[in-house]
Amino acid sequence: MGNCSQGCKDYFSRQKNTNIRLTLPVVCFVWQIAMIILFGVFIRYDEESDTHWVETKAHDNITSDIENDFYFRYPSFQDVHVMIFVGFGFLMTFLKRYSFGAVGFNFLIASFGLQWALLMQGWFHSLDPQTGKIFIGVESLINADFCVAGCLIAYGAVLGKVSPVQLLVMTLFGVTLFAVEEYIILNLLHARDAGGSMVIHTFGGYYGLAISRVLYRPNLHQSKRMQGSVYHSDTFAMIGTLFLWMFWPSFNSAITDHGDGQHRAVINTYLCLASTVLTTVAISSLSQKTGKLDMVRIITMSDDLSNSTLAGGVALGTAAEFMISPYGALIVGFFCGIISTMGYIFISPFLEKTLKIQDTCGIHNLHAMPGVIGGIVGAITAAAASESVYGKQGLINTFDFTGDFKDRTVLTQGGYQAAGMCVSIVFGVVGGAIVGSILKLPIWGDPADENCFDDEVYWEEEHQESIPPILEYNNHMIHKQQDL
Amino acid sequence: MGNCSQGCKDYFSRQKNTNIRLTLPVVCFVWQIAMIILFGVFIRYDEESDTHWVETKAHDNITSDIENDFYFRYPSFQDVHVMIFVGFGFLMTFLKRYSFGAVGFNFLIASFGLQWALLMQGWFHSLDPQTGKIFIGVESLINADFCVAGCLIAYGAVLGKVSPVQLLVMTLFGVTLFAVEEYIILNLLHARDAGGSMVIHTFGGYYGLAISRVLYRPNLHQSKRMQGSVYHSDTFAMIGTLFLWMFWPSFNSAITDHGDGQHRAVINTYLCLASTVLTTVAISSLSQKTGKLDMVRIITMSDDLSNSTLAGGVALGTAAEFMISPYGALIVGFFCGIISTMGYIFISPFLEKTLKIQDTCGIHNLHAMPGVIGGIVGAITAAAASESVYGKQGLINTFDFTGDFKDRTVLTQGGYQAAGMCVSIVFGVVGGAIVGSILKLPIWGDPADENCFDDEVYWEEEHQESIPPILEYNNHMIHKQQDL
Amino acid sequence: MGNCSQGCKDYFSRQKNTNIRLTLPVVCFVWQIAMIILFGVFIRYDEESDTHWVETKAHDNITSDIENDFYFRYPSFQDVHVMIFVGFGFLMTFLKRYSFGAVGFNFLIASFGLQWALLMQGWFHSLDPQTGKIFIGVESLINADFCVAGCLIAYGAVLGKVSPVQLLVMTLFGVTLFAVEEYIILNLLHARDAGGSMVIHTFGGYYGLAISRVLYRPNLHQSKRMQGSVYHSDTFAMIGTLFLWMFWPSFNSAITDHGDGQHRAVINTYLCLASTVLTTVAISSLSQKTGKLDMVRIITMSDDLSNSTLAGGVALGTAAEFMISPYGALIVGFFCGIISTMGYIFISPFLEKTLKIQDTCGIHNLHAMPGVIGGIVGAITAAAASESVYGKQGLINTFDFTGDFKDRTVLTQGGYQAAGMCVSIVFGVVGGAIVGSILKLPIWGDPADENCFDDEVYWEEEHQESIPPILEYNNHMIHKQQDL
Repeated sequence: MGNCSQGCKDYFSRQKNTNIRLTLPVVCFVWQIAMIILFGVFIRYDEESDTHWVETKAHDNITSDIENDFYFRYPSFQDVHVMIFVGFGFLMTFLKRYSFGAVGFNFLIASFGLQWALLMQGWFHSLDPQTGKIFIGVESLINADFCVAGCLIAYGAVLGKVSPVQLLVMTLFGVTLFAVEEYIILNLLHARDAGGSMVIHTFGGYYGLAISRVLYRPNLHQSKRMQGSVYHSDTFAMIGTLFLWMFWPSFNSAITDHGDGQHRAVINTYLCLASTVLTTVAISSLSQKTGKLDMVRIITMSDDLSNSTLAGGVALGTAAEFMISPYGALIVGFFCGIISTMGYIFISPFLEKTLKIQDTCGIHNLHAMPGVIGGIVGAITAAAASESVYGKQGLINTFDFTGDFKDRTVLTQGGYQAAGMCVSIVFGVVGGAIVGSILKLPIWGDPADENCFDDEVYWEEEHQESIPPILEYNNHMIHKQQDL
Repeated sequence: MGNCSQGCKDYFSRQKNTNIRLTLPVVCFVWQIAMIILFGVFIRYDEESDTHWVETKAHDNITSDIENDFYFRYPSFQDVHVMIFVGFGFLMTFLKRYSFGAVGFNFLIASFGLQWALLMQGWFHSLDPQTGKIFIGVESLINADFCVAGCLIAYGAVLGKVSPVQLLVMTLFGVTLFAVEEYIILNLLHARDAGGSMVIHTFGGYYGLAISRVLYRPNLHQSKRMQGSVYHSDTFAMIGTLFLWMFWPSFNSAITDHGDGQHRAVINTYLCLASTVLTTVAISSLSQKTGKLDMVRIITMSDDLSNSTLAGGVALGTAAEFMISPYGALIVGFFCGIISTMGYIFISPFLEKTLKIQDTCGIHNLHAMPGVIGGIVGAITAAAASESVYGKQGLINTFDFTGDFKDRTVLTQGGYQAAGMCVSIVFGVVGGAIVGSILKLPIWGDPADENCFDDEVYWEEEHQESIPPILEYNNHMIHKQQDL
Repeated sequence: MGNCSQGCKDYFSRQKNTNIRLTLPVVCFVWQIAMIILFGVFIRYDEESDTHWVETKAHDNITSDIENDFYFRYPSFQDVHVMIFVGFGFLMTFLKRYSFGAVGFNFLIASFGLQWALLMQGWFHSLDPQTGKIFIGVESLINADFCVAGCLIAYGAVLGKVSPVQLLVMTLFGVTLFAVEEYIILNLLHARDAGGSMVIHTFGGYYGLAISRVLYRPNLHQSKRMQGSVYHSDTFAMIGTLFLWMFWPSFNSAITDHGDGQHRAVINTYLCLASTVLTTVAISSLSQKTGKLDMVRIITMSDDLSNSTLAGGVALGTAAEFMISPYGALIVGFFCGIISTMGYIFISPFLEKTLKIQDTCGIHNLHAMPGVIGGIVGAITAAAASESVYGKQGLINTFDFTGDFKDRTVLTQGGYQAAGMCVSIVFGVVGGAIVGSILKLPIWGDPADENCFDDEVYWEEEHQESIPPILEYNNHMIHKQQDL
């Protein structure tokens, strides 16, 4: 028994081996081949992307190709696609030496995740009972990107501390859990969540935090030298921030109802995000102590600004399509900027020291907490909806009070919205704890504590072997003088 | 009297205090709360973004949701949004140590400005007399972004020399002046200005130049060490340039007439911008002297290329929707590239030395002067419009010769276009002079002459305290050898 | 005879003169003026971008402006535009000191090329026989961007080794050849090639490789110090990669049929690209040897990842609009990732050493070879098309079996597709060889072997003369301490 215990301990604490030359290719190949087989069995074009569309049009008396769903959603889809790959990728480039890992692994897991998401979401939401097939169109692509977003959020918590194989495993389970909680929240509870405050952000946030808790590294300070940012890495991170911020209206409106639904979600998100920027700046500025120098260093660490300005978009995810009214959107943004920035100042240290959650990108303040706020805002605004504001048909359309749900009242709807939020938290925390335990197995090639946040572990960098910039500069000067 | 004079002088020349820990949060909070109250009183969704759209559709016999204005304008809106936040923001990152200020303050003032613009433009253009409300939709969002663009242009002239509080004040007044001059030009004079050559660029340019004149700093050379660019900062600036350049067709077509109006504005702008690139390169290359080295350093300072290539888009702002014909667009671009590049070589030094206007980003050559050219091109092409080219109905549609203006001739229209341009110049110069005087008060926390163009004044930079890169490199090497 | 030979040799091997202060402006001015004249003679707005659209609408019973082709294609056009200027431009910024050349010359030649493309493609495809005019609309702009893409691909092979004048000459001939081969492939052979696997990528790739072969530099190793990348230059290159990758669905769907055609092309490309990422990562990881350190450097040189991940989009160019089915798209991506990455490892060294083709950006693996694969995939899937899958009308629409081609069978179509691919290869190789010979004349100002890959040759860099960063840092520190 003692031997076993000792053996286990040795097994877990042995020298870290980051060689993933075998595991990574095997995982990639096996999963990609599995995707091909499953797609072959299950996935087909839907009627709007099939060559039979010409017959569908005739049958449904559709007069123009412009009424194909493609033209309603494609511009939003491309914006969301940019958010997933450039937005999330570059947002995480603030670390001085982890740009390749941030952008590259983000690229890898998003590309895998979206394939698996098409299958999982298809099985749960749109499996045709007669043919046993899943029919996909542009809305499926958007939903797959959304699903991937949940996993990329979770990546933010463990950035720099895990191997690409761990990330792929985390994504496999993350997408699976996502599809199930999404099914429960949207289909069974019939909650509304257009921009995914609950389904995407709350789930993704707590999923990542729970994994990070299980993978707690007490000696992470050993890689402290790599944890800061440098000037240019912060500028790269601003690219990610801005593309997320600018395209968030597309995110929140991408799958809302045609017509006024998409239109209103854009207006609400646009206003909410603008309001968030001002309160974020205000709180950041207030929080800086006067330094030794007589001139005060003000405003904000770029991290605050990068992340908190986005919280407004998250917090309006659920209510984006509701008649929250323009000033309502501003109010949500106002408080969200304050709370999120406060989070960086007060809650993040608490999480790290007391709860032992090492949250590299601060996803608790950017996604988890604003997601919960979004869920609450959604529940309240749903419960407060009235026929006088929405109109009779408008109320039915907005909350989809049709079929089995045609007799549901707005108050009941508010209750189910709140229930949905609880489901997303539970799935995130419990799912993350289980997946974290799997990722703790010492077979995944994760880096040692002193090698965290360093691209060199997983990326071939030819130039690292070259002479340092200053010597190179000297050579350059010498070379120039020889030319003269 | 002498005492007073001395006292005033002391008051103005006392040690600069850049502590804005109080003023910035207060301004942000007060203004954001004011926005919420005013939005609560005045702003509502318009009929295309309201849940009552389903009734509007039935009432107006609209058969498909795709005819919601959202689908005509949303792709252009998102492009404009990228121009405002990434385009303008990154265009100004060329300074070696002012990337945070460029992108971050741009972000702050744009987020505030667009809220204030929705109110100001609403009061002047779309206040419903019956309900006393302003109804907003996607076109309002585009117009708000346009209005903000005027202030961001002005920011280019004072980049690095003002505090964020000053920028917020400048934006508050800038948006206010903008809404008034826009009302005079578009509504009273009934001039056409789809891409805002006059309303946005001429006004914004002269507004910024006038402010910069009032805030003239005779000892700015004290921060000369910070005024240059470095290799990577120029590359970041190219990101801004390209996103402005690529999306300018969307800028000029975003609020033109549905159908052929938007289509034609895109073609014209696309061609004009392409033509501008070639003449900019030609003039830049011509202007470089042969250095001592036998190999000649050619083409251009990246500043020329960054800015002058964009001048074509500015210069076609007014005429973009007119039947200027494809070769006409090329001609405008041809001359605009020449004039703008010449401006950098000859006019900028003149402005600085003789007129004492310190124009950090060269907005005179990129916005003010091309804006005036655009106004002139617009006036001439309007006056030269004929029914044979436009068609009877086409002429009416293009110049909106309806209602009170149904008897206006194209010649008269040309005159009013020219009058509009004068209005925008007057508003810019006079407004800028007044606002500049306000900004001269020593309460706004602007930096001392020797601290201009330096992010350190307003931004917490943790990494600055760290060891310099070369020492870090050595440590890194030592660390690696220890690993062996 | 001996004298002549000697004289010729001297003529070609004389000291390189990179002074293009005369040639570059002259070429730019002459060509731009020629464009203006030719546009004046030939180019007019088409009926959807002309003010007479109001009459066209009435005549054709078009009920809504939304049916203007503009609204079907503009979002895709803007994405393609971003690919051309940011995508191709930044993809080539990986070299440590050639970012200005990569982005700036890309900007220059694209701006010239698209004007010439509008003319050349107009003459071949849409010259109105009655009026002798070319009528352009948004689809023409997309086609012009596509045509330019062919030349930008070729630029990738000679990046850093040619002067801007050479690039302009290369673009002039490249666009000309492009229009001819496109006419043969699309009109005479009636092959389908929506995303241009053959027309754009195969042609562009072999055109560039043939030019690079003719311009072979045996002593290129003399500029070896400039050939590597640095950390931030690789991060910039990721911006280019990602924008190409994300917007490739727009590229492949931009000019396909309205409705299901565009919809299907997006789905296919989206899936194919995702699949490519996984196999690229797998092969890259496999290919890295274990280094001396116990930790293995894994995954990939960023070059692999940057380029090979894009190969899937190229390889699906022809078949994107076909009913290749979702799993078919995944399979194409699967093999394309493998082959392209293998190409970097095995074929690139072979090309350089044995065939003496110096391919700076590896366009053989990114464009030429995947383009050929795309042509083959297109031919096979066309030949395998059946009425049961496509539907009767769907088959006719997809392959445009109308007019002269109404009796063509899918098998014949497959043969013509294959013939089209051969045409593109022949045009690329032969055209490139001829143009390369022209570019070999010693009048174009190309850099000496030891000055390749260096922005300093053609770009004024003020900051290069400044003190090196480390000294500057010291000064900065001194300055700060003085402030205390």
